[in-house]
Amino acid sequence: LHIIGLGLTPDSISLKGVNVVKRCTKVFLDAYTSILVSYEDMAQLMKETLNRTDLIQADREMVEKRSDLILTDAKTSDVAFLVVGDALCATTHSDLYLRAVQQNIEVKVIHNASIVNAVAATGLEIYKFGRTISVPFFEEKWRPASFLVKTVQNFQLGMHTLLLMDIKTHELDWKCYMKGLERYQNPRYMSCAVCCQQIMQVFNEKCEEFEEAQQACKENKFDENVRVVACMRVGTDQQRFICCSIKDMAGLDKEMGAPLHSLVVLGNEVSEMEEEM
Amino acid sequence: LHIIGLGLTPDSISLKGVNVVKRCTKVFLDAYTSILVSYEDMAQLMKETLNRTDLIQADREMVEKRSDLILTDAKTSDVAFLVVGDALCATTHSDLYLRAVQQNIEVKVIHNASIVNAVAATGLEIYKFGRTISVPFFEEKWRPASFLVKTVQNFQLGMHTLLLMDIKTHELDWKCYMKGLERYQNPRYMSCAVCCQQIMQVFNEKCEEFEEAQQACKENKFDENVRVVACMRVGTDQQRFICCSIKDMAGLDKEMGAPLHSLVVLGNEVSEMEEEM
Repeated sequence: LHIIGLGLTPDSISLKGVNVVKRCTKVFLDAYTSILVSYEDMAQLMKETLNRTDLIQADREMVEKRSDLILTDAKTSDVAFLVVGDALCATTHSDLYLRAVQQNIEVKVIHNASIVNAVAATGLEIYKFGRTISVPFFEEKWRPASFLVKTVQNFQLGMHTLLLMDIKTHELDWKCYMKGLERYQNPRYMSCAVCCQQIMQVFNEKCEEFEEAQQACKENKFDENVRVVACMRVGTDQQRFICCSIKDMAGLDKEMGAPLHSLVVLGNEVSEMEEEM
Repeated sequence: LHIIGLGLTPDSISLKGVNVVKRCTKVFLDAYTSILVSYEDMAQLMKETLNRTDLIQADREMVEKRSDLILTDAKTSDVAFLVVGDALCATTHSDLYLRAVQQNIEVKVIHNASIVNAVAATGLEIYKFGRTISVPFFEEKWRPASFLVKTVQNFQLGMHTLLLMDIKTHELDWKCYMKGLERYQNPRYMSCAVCCQQIMQVFNEKCEEFEEAQQACKENKFDENVRVVACMRVGTDQQRFICCSIKDMAGLDKEMGAPLHSLVVLGNEVSEMEEEM
């Protein structure tokens, strides 16, 4: 089994990756985490480069629950599993790796760029980033603010924080489901504006679930004036950055354009590097 | 100017990177940070893939002090600057970026894998890493232990720490220099064993320069039994990992083989993922 990171655009696949794909009997594209690289674009690239038309789309269910579809072939021949970004940056892919190893299948990994290092395009030093944090969409009854607590921990150590926005690509439409129809909602991608709106909610609403986060913000002087950098479509030709306060970012819903977005919350010490932007 | 990340081996260059190099009038290889990709290997790859034999080696001096050699051509034509790992993970390359922008030269960046995400190959979650830290060689009169203080900060938050080992590729041989000869020492690469030996020195020696680090270790129960993972030659076919305590790692000098090494200090919470190793 070859787990091959594609990087941030289809043609970011490495020469090594292409050479491995060439000799594989089956080639899967992970369609669960991949919105940066569409099935159509990747299939097109495979056709042009290798004259292959047999790219298989692997949805979340196949990767997580029916991984044997992938692993059975990998027992007897070379199989490629293409992953957007780096090969092992998402837990799902590490899981696949582990399951393969448990079945005595040799796994080879080809790394590539992911947002975790490409965020250096902001001009911020990669060595000044604390832990990377995922931000979930707030729902009516589920509004965890722990992402903000962790961000404040980084902030207080002078570290920047990379926030990865929630993606919902395959959510059941419950209203239809109640009526017996299995329909899915349109995919939703969190924008930097929505993320900052959620942070503003935490700042301004009095309720039990936000208490811990509010306390942490207060103690460390983390407020609506802290500066953030919105990173849109990093690594693509449509890449764009915007730097302003959390408060201002929360109002920028329309200026940001298509996904994928990531947000950097600047630490409380910023070097001259930021001039670049 | 195109700053192109090569990733961790020569053939990790992306298709996009190859296509850009094809149309550039000059192609520089950064030889300062590149030990993973030798000039010979890269020149060979360019010859095979693009039938080009004009790869220019850019040493540290050219990149840092005589960057106009690179930028002058970039004003009037496409110039490629190849960088091992990700295009912007080292400060040197961000500097080049900034200088180009100041001269109104358009800069495009092609990202690639770097140790910062490839360390996921250990099976540790990339989201549980705190800031990345560089470790300098101790010298007789200069033994800064601040790298350990920062590691303990990560540890105390339950975060893993990626330590990047010092590299000395172009150091003057002072004895020769005194005699009027400009000779250079053999390149030196820190191994994980040497790094752990330095940590053991901090634990065991009573002296002023280590006091702050010793205090931080004591307060956070960070001692010689903390587990570390040695990561050797990540991303290459000779990749290898060893997991043991700091104390044991300090004694493993001979088992580790060739550079490049990186060390992960595990946080005080480790999930089941480590089973993979």
